[in-house]
Amino acid sequence: MGNFKEDIVRTEAFVFDVDGVFTDGGITPFGDDFIRRYYAKDGYAVSYAARMGYKICIISGGRGKWLQERFERLHATKIYIDCADKIAALREFLYEYGLDARNVVFMGDDIPDLECMQAVGIPVAPADAASEILDAARYVSEYPGGRGCVRDIVEQVLRARGHWALHAKGVNCTTDAQSN
Amino acid sequence: MGNFKEDIVRTEAFVFDVDGVFTDGGITPFGDDFIRRYYAKDGYAVSYAARMGYKICIISGGRGKWLQERFERLHATKIYIDCADKIAALREFLYEYGLDARNVVFMGDDIPDLECMQAVGIPVAPADAASEILDAARYVSEYPGGRGCVRDIVEQVLRARGHWALHAKGVNCTTDAQSN
Amino acid sequence: MGNFKEDIVRTEAFVFDVDGVFTDGGITPFGDDFIRRYYAKDGYAVSYAARMGYKICIISGGRGKWLQERFERLHATKIYIDCADKIAALREFLYEYGLDARNVVFMGDDIPDLECMQAVGIPVAPADAASEILDAARYVSEYPGGRGCVRDIVEQVLRARGHWALHAKGVNCTTDAQSN
Amino acid sequence: MGNFKEDIVRTEAFVFDVDGVFTDGGITPFGDDFIRRYYAKDGYAVSYAARMGYKICIISGGRGKWLQERFERLHATKIYIDCADKIAALREFLYEYGLDARNVVFMGDDIPDLECMQAVGIPVAPADAASEILDAARYVSEYPGGRGCVRDIVEQVLRARGHWALHAKGVNCTTDAQSN
Repeated sequence: MGNFKEDIVRTEAFVFDVDGVFTDGGITPFGDDFIRRYYAKDGYAVSYAARMGYKICIISGGRGKWLQERFERLHATKIYIDCADKIAALREFLYEYGLDARNVVFMGDDIPDLECMQAVGIPVAPADAASEILDAARYVSEYPGGRGCVRDIVEQVLRARGHWALHAKGVNCTTDAQSN
Repeated sequence: MGNFKEDIVRTEAFVFDVDGVFTDGGITPFGDDFIRRYYAKDGYAVSYAARMGYKICIISGGRGKWLQERFERLHATKIYIDCADKIAALREFLYEYGLDARNVVFMGDDIPDLECMQAVGIPVAPADAASEILDAARYVSEYPGGRGCVRDIVEQVLRARGHWALHAKGVNCTTDAQSN
Repeated sequence: MGNFKEDIVRTEAFVFDVDGVFTDGGITPFGDDFIRRYYAKDGYAVSYAARMGYKICIISGGRGKWLQERFERLHATKIYIDCADKIAALREFLYEYGLDARNVVFMGDDIPDLECMQAVGIPVAPADAASEILDAARYVSEYPGGRGCVRDIVEQVLRARGHWALHAKGVNCTTDAQSN
Repeated sequence: MGNFKEDIVRTEAFVFDVDGVFTDGGITPFGDDFIRRYYAKDGYAVSYAARMGYKICIISGGRGKWLQERFERLHATKIYIDCADKIAALREFLYEYGLDARNVVFMGDDIPDLECMQAVGIPVAPADAASEILDAARYVSEYPGGRGCVRDIVEQVLRARGHWALHAKGVNCTTDAQSN
């Protein structure tokens, strides 16, 4: 395990838990589904990274049709929800896309994420993650869940690769600029 | 009444108010029901404690079908909602499960919880409880309602018992590890 | 105009704006209505004050069936919603209940409340009110809208009258303890 | 480019992004639409500015019927939603209303707003805008998105013009007081 700043340059995929990562942990039962409040800046970053060719995987113990739809809309590569065995899901995703676990970012916030944190090369966490998760993380964002921790790690990786804000610089980013 | 750290080791049951404890006190009328925003890390802790054999009781003056369903989903042992006489509910719960009030945690946040706070051995409160409640509490969490106060007290008790995060340590926790 | 602490002892009625007072100013359009997030501790205080015989009046420029229902449930004496002429509503309320404006609390947060603030004896404001309102207030709560400013002023008045938390002290408060 | 305080006196129009400007960036999928939580004090300011004759334009990449309706209700002059080409929308708006870009305020918070920020005379940003946007802004509000940044810039401009709070001063502001 080398230097964090150097290691993230090899990132091929981002794997995210949802509750407490894309949200502040707030969960609102609504009839048969759940209302979740996401963060527009996170959504922009994930959608942009997907467009740039990064693999995006969601592994959540949460449930709900709206949860599924949110991440389809952001062009996630693979979505596991209502997932009781997160490490099995992670392994399947890595295998299916031929990914090296060392080049994978995993961001989780609570105990069910711990095994996945330990299985990838770049485990990261929101500022308000559970203590076991903070201990397991190589990088703890200054932003808490639902308030920019996803944006932070995506932006850091893509900046390190020279992939961030190409749109703003006039580069046509509707085609994939990343080839790996 | 002994030392708090020592007393919580004998905890057999957790009794919780809802509004201002599981939520930040925000209450959103929606048609004939109410939308409440819970906290995923609290939910994990309560559900985990129930699985470990602790009795979980909800005593709320609040109403709504969704309120009932939330705590059924977390495997609460007993749920009192729309409850005008909290102390009667508490006594019924203790009697029905043969519990010693000295070994019961009660977490409340406002004046209607005061009698129950005074009736149990381990009254606790969120950081932002009403002043009367803070005075009656043996322990005030550093976390406010809806932002981790439930997780905090559950985690403290289960850590003191050696019951916390067994899953993360490879112990099969789908069977009850607690027999009392 | 005397001392604030002395003047509030004569309080006969509370008049409240809604958005930015009972809520943090967040307003969520939902179909033909609006979702508003209230604060349970405020609700308890208002309902308790109504039960103790204080007149409660709501004067809001906001709209929605759920808004009306919220304050009916809290036993408000009079509710004006979708109100374009707040000062006329206030005058009607005072006249209808034979109230002396000097003994009335008004809590507002924005410019449309300014005339009403100036028309009563005890104008008060949330911590995050508009600057014109802060200037007009005799008392600015340390709590912002939707996070306890209503509870704060109700509690202060009722404590000054010896009416607060009688329930907690074993007094039967289901009958009106106030006769004026 | 002169002094900010002097330049805003020439403001003829306000152009706003929505997510992260009128909201705190929170975005809540709800069936086929999205729930957004606005801020009452922002709404008052925008509606008042429209009534005073200022042109109000919304340019958002966001979608939803409720989004459209919110800004119709605030009397926005022109509303672009689900907008993939913000700079084209801005140019169309300026052309249609014969506006000089130098006299236009644009408030955005994220990378898709960057080109528009650079195209107007008075680019401004919420406190929590993306770093690229903060760099491009001539003025950064002390208030974040959804918590008063819109109110802040509208109030500053209208105060500089002597147009703020005329209602509170007894001026009949139901007719347009501004003729340019």
